[in-house]
Amino acid sequence: MRLVNIDHVGIAVRDLDRALARHEELFRVRPLYREVVEEQGVEEAMLPVGGSNIQLLMPLGKDTPVGRFLERRGEGIHHVAFAVASIEDALEHLAAEGAQLIDEHPRLGGGGHRVAFVHPRTVAGTLIELVELNE
Amino acid sequence: MRLVNIDHVGIAVRDLDRALARHEELFRVRPLYREVVEEQGVEEAMLPVGGSNIQLLMPLGKDTPVGRFLERRGEGIHHVAFAVASIEDALEHLAAEGAQLIDEHPRLGGGGHRVAFVHPRTVAGTLIELVELNE
Repeated sequence: MRLVNIDHVGIAVRDLDRALARHEELFRVRPLYREVVEEQGVEEAMLPVGGSNIQLLMPLGKDTPVGRFLERRGEGIHHVAFAVASIEDALEHLAAEGAQLIDEHPRLGGGGHRVAFVHPRTVAGTLIELVELNE
Repeated sequence: MRLVNIDHVGIAVRDLDRALARHEELFRVRPLYREVVEEQGVEEAMLPVGGSNIQLLMPLGKDTPVGRFLERRGEGIHHVAFAVASIEDALEHLAAEGAQLIDEHPRLGGGGHRVAFVHPRTVAGTLIELVELNE
C-alpha cells in the first residue's frame, strides 16, 4: 500500500453549472472534463488544482448516494480520493487491517479509472475513494 | 488569483493519537510535524500524501471551531486548503467577487504559514482555507 497523491476532493453540489461558474470566477479554475457516471448516479466535473483536483458532483436523482448526502447534510465536501498504483494491493492491505470496504472489488469510475470506496466508519468519519492510476 | 495546489484536506478527529496510529496502519502515512496552534484552538498533524497533505485536527476544547464541528457533525472532513502565492492578492480578488471572508486579513496558521478562511456560504457549502506558500 502506497498513496501516490490526493487525486481529488469530491464536493456535492445541487447545481453543477452554477458551481462551475462560481469556481471559475472565484478561483480561476476550469474543468478538465465533465461527464455523467451512471454507475455512481452523478454528473461530475474535474477541476485541476496543481497536481490534484476538485471534483464537483451533482446527483442524477434524489435516490442516489450523493442525492441522499445532499438531503442529509446539504452541499459540501463528500469524500477524499487517494491515487494508488495498484487498487487490488490497496484493497487487500486495507481488508487485512480491518477496514470496512464499500467495494471489495474495484469498479469503473470517472475518467475510466478503476475505483473503490472505503466506509467512513473505517477512520476519522471520512469517506475515502481509491483511484487506480492508469498506465 | 492562482491556486498553486491543494495544500491539504483538514479532517476533524476526537483522538489524534488514535487517528495517527490508524492512518499509519491503513495508509502507511506518518506525520511530517505535529503541533498545537493555540490561535485556532487545535492540535494538528500533517501527513504528506504525494504533493499534498492530510491534516488531522483535534480541538483543544469544546468551545472552539473544530470542537463545535465535532459536536454538530462528528468526525469527518472539515475543510480544504488551497496553496496560493500571495494571500493578499487572493483575498482582494475574492472580496471583489463577493466571497464571504472569515478572515479579511491573513493570520498565522500551522507550519508558520499565513492563512485565511473563506466562509462555506461562498461556494458549494465548503469551508476553504488559503495558505500562503513560504518563500
